Amino acid sequence: MKEIEALWSEVRDLSLGNSSRVERLESPPTPLQFLRDFVSPNKPCLISNAINHWPALSSWTHHSYLTRLLSSSSVSLHLTPNGRADALVVHHASLCFASAHVERVPFPEALSLISSGSRDSPSNLRFVAYAQQQNDCFRSEYSALAADCDPHIPWATHALGCVPEAVNLWIGNQYSQTSFHKDHYENLYAVVTGEKHFLLLPPTDVHRMYIRDYPAANYRYSWDTGEFSLELEKPTRHVPWCSVNPYPSPENKEAEMSKFPLYFNGPEPVQCTVKAGEILYL
Amino acid sequence: MKEIEALWSEVRDLSLGNSSRVERLESPPTPLQFLRDFVSPNKPCLISNAINHWPALSSWTHHSYLTRLLSSSSVSLHLTPNGRADALVVHHASLCFASAHVERVPFPEALSLISSGSRDSPSNLRFVAYAQQQNDCFRSEYSALAADCDPHIPWATHALGCVPEAVNLWIGNQYSQTSFHKDHYENLYAVVTGEKHFLLLPPTDVHRMYIRDYPAANYRYSWDTGEFSLELEKPTRHVPWCSVNPYPSPENKEAEMSKFPLYFNGPEPVQCTVKAGEILYL
Repeated sequence: MKEIEALWSEVRDLSLGNSSRVERLESPPTPLQFLRDFVSPNKPCLISNAINHWPALSSWTHHSYLTRLLSSSSVSLHLTPNGRADALVVHHASLCFASAHVERVPFPEALSLISSGSRDSPSNLRFVAYAQQQNDCFRSEYSALAADCDPHIPWATHALGCVPEAVNLWIGNQYSQTSFHKDHYENLYAVVTGEKHFLLLPPTDVHRMYIRDYPAANYRYSWDTGEFSLELEKPTRHVPWCSVNPYPSPENKEAEMSKFPLYFNGPEPVQCTVKAGEILYL
Repeated sequence: MKEIEALWSEVRDLSLGNSSRVERLESPPTPLQFLRDFVSPNKPCLISNAINHWPALSSWTHHSYLTRLLSSSSVSLHLTPNGRADALVVHHASLCFASAHVERVPFPEALSLISSGSRDSPSNLRFVAYAQQQNDCFRSEYSALAADCDPHIPWATHALGCVPEAVNLWIGNQYSQTSFHKDHYENLYAVVTGEKHFLLLPPTDVHRMYIRDYPAANYRYSWDTGEFSLELEKPTRHVPWCSVNPYPSPENKEAEMSKFPLYFNGPEPVQCTVKAGEILYL
């Protein structure tokens, strides 16, 4: 335990720095600077003024623009009861890894469900809709928008020595949430409209996430009844996922803290908000 | 065990490549190429034509040149019975980590002991002398030679974002040997005269080295008797060192193979010879 604590502290002293903030660049780095100062030491950074020239920054704020260009496109829409897709959920008294109900719907309908269709009355959330599919969807489902962004980020492509393996687009609302997870990819996350909050841990803190195997399950949404069901996959498939919910509800907090002491008693993760026009490297 | 074997194989498939040879560059890389293709993936490379302009390449082949410039310098000379300094040695029936007898001697004398003074008859090796001290010795003990080499390797300095922490010089003979060890530094090893043979394992193979703690001991050489003694340090100090001798003598080979199966049954380490004028990045 002492050794693990020493590791947390050393990686912050030697490499990441002890700041509770993500380093911010006011303009794009050179490929060498990006690779040397961020990619190699596994250090996130927030980059402003790197995508100002993307037409998307202005045109995507107009729903009418998007529905016009994507009028004949179907996109993958993820539906969950609460916005937490790919997350741990209690099912028959034990935890499972629940994936969203996924449906291809015409883009205009998807956008309307994301922005307002999720309520049947102001107080009643029917579901949370989140347009996403992490299969390079921007270059497939959303290819009609290709001209609105650069096809790649040149300084990153030079630094990493390859064009992006996948370019994904997420369109969500204030309920959209991605659960705490680990990911071995090099990611550049550009926000076009709105903002996204991240909570980050360095790779050396992986033990603090308590990655465990959970049985995979899938939400099914019935448009008739307006109800979700949750079914375990048959045959059983296990998904390794982070056990920690970094924002436990007040009544669960004590129990969670005693179950996951490495997380709750270790150094604070770094919080970071990416605003429209910014890129987060992580 | 299966998981470890999968790791050995994956790191070779995904990152290092499965070649039994170190990649060779015929000219110095750009800083970006060096960082991206070698430093980041922890991949060694041999670089030719990077130091052709160093005056050292021609002038250091003449002993008279070296003894003239260093006529008034004292240098650290390491003496061992067999050329194996900083190596495991059997002492009172158990292994210890034996460091050389170190003495500061005038450079001309050191050079003469390295090149010929180690024999008292053609068949009798008195000791092996090796001029080295890994404390930035090139910029201290050998500062008279500073003008013969560049003070740093520009493409590496740019890639790594800093000038060398230490610049060391080794002057040895055919018996000089460095025992199998691990090292977390980024190293650029330039050979000026002669050649050096390396045996390399990637960082992910560290378990194959069986790093264990051994009590530190020091050789003492008596110029009067011409004998070495070996004494354990008091108070006892333990040094973590690699247990594996990659070149066991034929009569020990079977015993060594059964003691260190991860080493002897795993993928072959990469052999590499660095010749005068070449740099090995490792």
